[in-house]
Amino acid sequence: MKIKIITTGGTIDKIYFDRKSEFQIGDPQIAEVLKGANVTLEYEICPLLRKDSLDLTDADRGLIHDTVGADSSRLFVITHGTDTMIQTARALQDIPGKVIVLTGAMQPARFRMTDAVFNIACAVTAVQLLQDGVYLAMNGRIFQPDKAAKNVAMNRFEDL
Amino acid sequence: MKIKIITTGGTIDKIYFDRKSEFQIGDPQIAEVLKGANVTLEYEICPLLRKDSLDLTDADRGLIHDTVGADSSRLFVITHGTDTMIQTARALQDIPGKVIVLTGAMQPARFRMTDAVFNIACAVTAVQLLQDGVYLAMNGRIFQPDKAAKNVAMNRFEDL
Amino acid sequence: MKIKIITTGGTIDKIYFDRKSEFQIGDPQIAEVLKGANVTLEYEICPLLRKDSLDLTDADRGLIHDTVGADSSRLFVITHGTDTMIQTARALQDIPGKVIVLTGAMQPARFRMTDAVFNIACAVTAVQLLQDGVYLAMNGRIFQPDKAAKNVAMNRFEDL
Amino acid sequence: MKIKIITTGGTIDKIYFDRKSEFQIGDPQIAEVLKGANVTLEYEICPLLRKDSLDLTDADRGLIHDTVGADSSRLFVITHGTDTMIQTARALQDIPGKVIVLTGAMQPARFRMTDAVFNIACAVTAVQLLQDGVYLAMNGRIFQPDKAAKNVAMNRFEDL
Repeated sequence: MKIKIITTGGTIDKIYFDRKSEFQIGDPQIAEVLKGANVTLEYEICPLLRKDSLDLTDADRGLIHDTVGADSSRLFVITHGTDTMIQTARALQDIPGKVIVLTGAMQPARFRMTDAVFNIACAVTAVQLLQDGVYLAMNGRIFQPDKAAKNVAMNRFEDL
Repeated sequence: MKIKIITTGGTIDKIYFDRKSEFQIGDPQIAEVLKGANVTLEYEICPLLRKDSLDLTDADRGLIHDTVGADSSRLFVITHGTDTMIQTARALQDIPGKVIVLTGAMQPARFRMTDAVFNIACAVTAVQLLQDGVYLAMNGRIFQPDKAAKNVAMNRFEDL
Repeated sequence: MKIKIITTGGTIDKIYFDRKSEFQIGDPQIAEVLKGANVTLEYEICPLLRKDSLDLTDADRGLIHDTVGADSSRLFVITHGTDTMIQTARALQDIPGKVIVLTGAMQPARFRMTDAVFNIACAVTAVQLLQDGVYLAMNGRIFQPDKAAKNVAMNRFEDL
Repeated sequence: MKIKIITTGGTIDKIYFDRKSEFQIGDPQIAEVLKGANVTLEYEICPLLRKDSLDLTDADRGLIHDTVGADSSRLFVITHGTDTMIQTARALQDIPGKVIVLTGAMQPARFRMTDAVFNIACAVTAVQLLQDGVYLAMNGRIFQPDKAAKNVAMNRFEDL
């Protein structure tokens, strides 16, 4: 069972640049997380984009869509910023024959207290068990894109 | 969807006692892990035992079995030492109408580099998606107790 | 030997606000660091400012100066942004009868990989051993403000 | 200013062990700590022993003594188990012309919550500021070996 992992940026991969006093997106952290947990699955990481999800364009979503669609793999985990994760998920729903789980984090993976490890694990587990379709893995739950929303004030995903 | 969490001890909850120069089992860490990841599921933690799994007796396994069997919940996550996790899992297979996922860790949850968070997340996700039965969640994969073994030398679980 | 700790903000105390996709300065972390290390010194924390050091004004520096000058304590550790730490240090050099050590961090204390703990420990140690005067504790070394500079490109403090 | 670092084992470098484990003490962690904090001092690490300090023999202490005595360096930091750190410190007091600071940790450096980083930073700072002699750096304070004791129940070092 091989999982194709596509990274697109988002809070999960943010780093702190002291010299600019700002956060930017760094190398994807998912490889470290999977190695650190001694995950014995087969997987391949495709670093596709490095954007805050508020900055993703239609062209970017088209790129994610076409990358998944053109890939013969059946199982996909996509790490993504949480602000427009649902929007991207909906844009992938017309791709047949694949299980696609999007996840991200509210706190960067490089933080001591982060939801990144937990969310990645949820996505990696869910993608092995779900039927074909597109899903989100956040806050320990699996959501369908048409029935979910990000509650910004409460910093979590919820059922619509 | 409410998850009943039963903690039994194991490496996952070990702490270091400097004054005795040894590791012992401390308070279960799963609550911290779930809070830290902002998990929005409903769950209830039942701290049942605090044993290294090499020290679990038939009576202990009977207690775990009866605790699960007598509980009206349908979904169970059990944190457990990895050395005899498969043995306990097999002892629970006759309980009908429940999804039971056992997990643990090779490195204590209190370590900086630990598989505990990842494994707990896998178990919590899997228990929401699997059919009735007993399973193990380790190394990013879901195992059936009759088809799994702990590879002690490689420090991981594998298919038999 | 009692140490007065004054916190003024800086990278050391930065947190990430996902809902605003930005960093801000949060509660000072030095108390957690000292408790976590089981430090048995007497100390008192005075949270004075919560600013990025690039935003400190002459009035702010005057406030820090007067707060130190009016305090009967002899030993001071000041946590501060690294960008203008030297400037603030120089502004304190006319205060007699005190040992004042400024420190900060290039990576927020809330990060898994941070220099915050190390730097705080250096400052707390140095303030107990140095003669009266103003100093910086960064990168494992003690600097005099007139003989130091922040090398922004290399992200460290150096001798002038 | 070059620091010679001698590692001898102790809790600071302990890895997870249970009754099946072959080893208790792992690779010295001090290098990681110094790199992680971007310490710009010159230092050299000499991994001498890998023992719990309760297991150190007179021959071991003789080895530590002679290693320091024969070395032309002036500044030494020695990481050591806390149980007999004072005993070793006393055995080094006859070596002239050197500043020797012993430190260790109550919780392994590999733990998420550890005093190791703080203590290493204290020792590295103290060794640059102290007069010739032998000292202990624990709990944020500098102790002289003849005037200190480990309070085992309270898990800390105190003045005699």
